Amino acid sequence: MQDFINVGLLGAGTVGGGVIQVLERNAEDIAHKVGKPIKITKVFGRHPEALRKKYGEAYEYTANADDILQDPAIDIVVELLGREHPAKEVITTALSLGKNVVTANKDVIAKYGKALFDIAEEKQCDLMFEAAVAGGIPIIQPLKTSLAANKVHSLMGIVNGTTNYMLTKMSQERLDYNEVLADAQAKGYAESDPTADVGGLDAARKLVILASIAFNTPVALKDVQVEGIEKISLRDIEYAEELGYAIKLLAIAKTDPEHGISVSVHPTMLPKSHPLAGVSDVYNAIFVTADAVGDTMFMGLGAGRYPTASAVCGDIMDVARNMQHHENGRIRCTCYKEKQLCPLENVLTPCYIRMHVKDKSGALAAIAAAFGAQNVSLRNVIQKAKVNDEAEVVVITHTVSEANLQMALQVLQVLPVVSDVCTVIRVEDGSLE
Amino acid sequence: MQDFINVGLLGAGTVGGGVIQVLERNAEDIAHKVGKPIKITKVFGRHPEALRKKYGEAYEYTANADDILQDPAIDIVVELLGREHPAKEVITTALSLGKNVVTANKDVIAKYGKALFDIAEEKQCDLMFEAAVAGGIPIIQPLKTSLAANKVHSLMGIVNGTTNYMLTKMSQERLDYNEVLADAQAKGYAESDPTADVGGLDAARKLVILASIAFNTPVALKDVQVEGIEKISLRDIEYAEELGYAIKLLAIAKTDPEHGISVSVHPTMLPKSHPLAGVSDVYNAIFVTADAVGDTMFMGLGAGRYPTASAVCGDIMDVARNMQHHENGRIRCTCYKEKQLCPLENVLTPCYIRMHVKDKSGALAAIAAAFGAQNVSLRNVIQKAKVNDEAEVVVITHTVSEANLQMALQVLQVLPVVSDVCTVIRVEDGSLE
Repeated sequence: MQDFINVGLLGAGTVGGGVIQVLERNAEDIAHKVGKPIKITKVFGRHPEALRKKYGEAYEYTANADDILQDPAIDIVVELLGREHPAKEVITTALSLGKNVVTANKDVIAKYGKALFDIAEEKQCDLMFEAAVAGGIPIIQPLKTSLAANKVHSLMGIVNGTTNYMLTKMSQERLDYNEVLADAQAKGYAESDPTADVGGLDAARKLVILASIAFNTPVALKDVQVEGIEKISLRDIEYAEELGYAIKLLAIAKTDPEHGISVSVHPTMLPKSHPLAGVSDVYNAIFVTADAVGDTMFMGLGAGRYPTASAVCGDIMDVARNMQHHENGRIRCTCYKEKQLCPLENVLTPCYIRMHVKDKSGALAAIAAAFGAQNVSLRNVIQKAKVNDEAEVVVITHTVSEANLQMALQVLQVLPVVSDVCTVIRVEDGSLE
Repeated sequence: MQDFINVGLLGAGTVGGGVIQVLERNAEDIAHKVGKPIKITKVFGRHPEALRKKYGEAYEYTANADDILQDPAIDIVVELLGREHPAKEVITTALSLGKNVVTANKDVIAKYGKALFDIAEEKQCDLMFEAAVAGGIPIIQPLKTSLAANKVHSLMGIVNGTTNYMLTKMSQERLDYNEVLADAQAKGYAESDPTADVGGLDAARKLVILASIAFNTPVALKDVQVEGIEKISLRDIEYAEELGYAIKLLAIAKTDPEHGISVSVHPTMLPKSHPLAGVSDVYNAIFVTADAVGDTMFMGLGAGRYPTASAVCGDIMDVARNMQHHENGRIRCTCYKEKQLCPLENVLTPCYIRMHVKDKSGALAAIAAAFGAQNVSLRNVIQKAKVNDEAEVVVITHTVSEANLQMALQVLQVLPVVSDVCTVIRVEDGSLE
């Protein structure tokens, strides 16, 4: 048995480099807390020589993953390759060979989590992934441990820093969508192809992981209703503020005892007083409502070299502690149920709708009637001065089922007085007492 | 070996009752997550018959703690008696007999934590106390696990719900101190003798626990500079808002590489944009700044039957998981260092000072000169209309050492133009980038 915990690192890019630095910088404290030193011995990367120049002679570098996976001396495999392949194969092999795995890979965990946990359980290994959701924010572990005695009612998260930065900037600097997107790209917050961020897919992957843990049931990406922020205009943000709301891209998981669980990612209007409404810039936060604890929120940086390394290293230490006590596999897969999904048409929320209408008498009455016919009652109505010869009408409905909402929208679209239904945004009044 | 985890409960009041209910209500899920059912078998209380009426025949009730402590079948002793004695003796006995202990007792942990952990380590037992600080908010575990790879720079907490409720109410409803205290007492948020809450002692005990874990060094109650909210008037809150700040009672732990660690509880002016400034009513929050994770915040209900039970039950489940793997004592005492305390005179913060001055020409100049003579430079100065024939002057200094501040205050107090120095409040500009 080695007198240190032997870590093999696959992927020494932004996050991997951060992990190397944190483990070096805080080595003494980490050894104290774990009871043994933790050492990275081998680092995998496509360009070993470049890595050697960067991180020095303390590590062995290889361009062949098997040098790590097949090395019997390595206790923990840290997978930071990103993307689905070969990360999934690397994790599978490591677990099959009885190695503990720490990963930051949301794509792999969201898609193959259950299958990988089956191997981990069979091999009595740890599979940890705190960094896969919301970077440095402790949320996976708290859900699995400190909050484990609770029945989670709902979970709402700002889990994509790029879109939160963009929406914050739109509202603070009164800029329109395309301006803030360009700015986010210039700052490196958004990729040249920003689709996965602004379209909500990145948030959806994280939600799949969070919901599976919160509700103890497998959730698949296809189950998530995904809607991005592309259609959010400055006008919507201004109306929201006028009505006392902020617009955030939220990943929402709810459970309805009668209809089952629902998972969705969409722009959401939140009361300004809600704790999530104050989470700005690239910060992430997860707001959890459960039967015993009530409302609780976890906030921090959802990405970046060191915050993500913080989560990865925390997991490595937890695995190392388990190794000290030969109790790897201590926390098993938490998906031991098969809960049904709430049919979309039964999902209930209030809704904000902005539309352009012909500016003639009776227009508003016709619109109100169209809503009424679908049992959609209105909570707020704003009619503003003309926008190129048309009136702009904004309504917020009372709580409405998706089914009724869609019918109402269809009717509106064909209503002669309505020339355009510009935006539809769900409203969350939050569960904060 | 029993086919369930056998829990003995000492104290079946507000929190104990909540623990009984949560373990009953979520029994099936808890068993799934832990791998074994968790059952309370014996309950200690001064009035067994009253408890039997309340919680039914499922449990055995006793007025003799030894019936639980000396019962070899009991795996986990849950101490919810509150206060220092006999809670400390109960925990000591339980650990000495090799039983795992879960407690919500901040007084005992703050004062005897280290000694109790020595017994726990010798006996290879768990000693867990998530509920001792900030009720249902997961903060002890995240500091010991998910964030364990970090060097913590500072920790600022709203850890007393009573005072946060009072300060929120003062600012939202423009009420003065005595009015909100009476209201808090009427609502049951404040005790008839509110000293421990409003005086900051309750927060100081929690800070002792948080700082010891964050800095891995023993911290004693006597090390904490404690100042309550008794002197905060509505005028201070109004000035704070005028200057863009909120006033919160913060428990603050900082580490200065040169001078050591400082721990203090005092009313603090926080920029309105700081996440802690938005934490209102009885909510608690802990804001942690560390080298890797950066800024992160944990928010939730810091007291109450179910939130506290959530933390206690989470700990019970963690102990139960360790038992499954015969690895209790997995997380040891985290105080493995002896860090020096920063001498008070070296503690640095900006400072808000409100004073009444004789309304004559040159008064302000004299005051500015008095500050200048002690190398205290001023960031903001407000002079308002007369208050019964005197002018009210408010200043915010730049960062100043406690030593210089105290000297400046002494000079001010004897300055002929100054008739009264009303309030002195530290200012935190927060470390949020």
